[in-house]
Amino acid sequence: MSVQARDIEVPGGTGHAVRLAAGETVTVVNVHGTQVVDTWAIPLPVGAAEPEFLSMEHCREVLTRILFRPGDVLITNRYRPILTIVADTSPGGHDTLIAACSAGMYLRAGRPPGHRNCSDNLRAALAAHGAALPFTPSPWNLFMIAAVLDGNALEYRRPVSKPGDSVTVRAELDCLVAVSACPDDVYPTNGGDGTPREIVLRLGG
Amino acid sequence: MSVQARDIEVPGGTGHAVRLAAGETVTVVNVHGTQVVDTWAIPLPVGAAEPEFLSMEHCREVLTRILFRPGDVLITNRYRPILTIVADTSPGGHDTLIAACSAGMYLRAGRPPGHRNCSDNLRAALAAHGAALPFTPSPWNLFMIAAVLDGNALEYRRPVSKPGDSVTVRAELDCLVAVSACPDDVYPTNGGDGTPREIVLRLGG
Repeated sequence: MSVQARDIEVPGGTGHAVRLAAGETVTVVNVHGTQVVDTWAIPLPVGAAEPEFLSMEHCREVLTRILFRPGDVLITNRYRPILTIVADTSPGGHDTLIAACSAGMYLRAGRPPGHRNCSDNLRAALAAHGAALPFTPSPWNLFMIAAVLDGNALEYRRPVSKPGDSVTVRAELDCLVAVSACPDDVYPTNGGDGTPREIVLRLGG
Repeated sequence: MSVQARDIEVPGGTGHAVRLAAGETVTVVNVHGTQVVDTWAIPLPVGAAEPEFLSMEHCREVLTRILFRPGDVLITNRYRPILTIVADTSPGGHDTLIAACSAGMYLRAGRPPGHRNCSDNLRAALAAHGAALPFTPSPWNLFMIAAVLDGNALEYRRPVSKPGDSVTVRAELDCLVAVSACPDDVYPTNGGDGTPREIVLRLGG
């Protein structure tokens, strides 16, 4: 893939946040097709006593769906529109049900302490903008498939995206959009060979 | 229903929190069968900079199910067991996907300001124990049915519980268990005639 002027490469296993003004877009490019990208959005300015954030449980309530698709307006925990899904070249199925990975998850899975994780990546990505949250909101897991069987059981599957598949969102508020190229090497949902890979954030319009 | 010595009546539309030591149980009794009960659990002591709470997104991850049932061990966002489901006399289907109602939800629905809501009920119930959280964790919505169709679409339904149906949980950690007899009169999920009704918390063992 050719690198464009406004492309930001995010190495596998790491995070990054971009500042968007209302109306601006960002495209998350799954360079290899196998990478899960935990995604969050937080209105600016950050720092209120009661944090506001893109909320999966509020989006599901209002959209009356588990999965989101182009045209959907995603909202915060205060019901304010924060992102509109403009385009999605992938087969979709971006999980909204499963927690971001964390230090605790890898310890539980028997990994040694210090494993990279999306929760710490979020914290670092926000800190680079002088922002912080007191907890990790449930993420929008781009390209991650946790299929719902019989209305209840979850089946973790390998990503079904093609190299270069992407999701584009438009900011409806001035906000930070944070992503983590998930370091998960425990579940089958990420990678395909246990290797986190780089993604690209493409800033446009 | 006869009132027992350790029963606590929680009026419709209001909240309450009880302090449980590890090993103690509480039973949430749906007196009329029609009442949704938003439920949270928070380890004691409360007050860390990074809050710990019963987390729907972590429970779904580990249980690989959307819905929980007797025998399930429910965990916090740090993967610590906090509640075990001991018994459930209801048909189940307790929602884990939908946000607690809040001031913002009722304003969005066109209700006048000041509508009672589960988020404020949680805040007040915790404050009665000198505790606070900086946000409203996604609740375990006892007796609420948001059926998942085709692995994606959500269908809000009236409760299917019988009068007196109940769910019993055992604390695995010293914790606060907070409930709100949901004041919702917007969605069909609560009540049946738009009237929130009382529930009972039965402390035992």
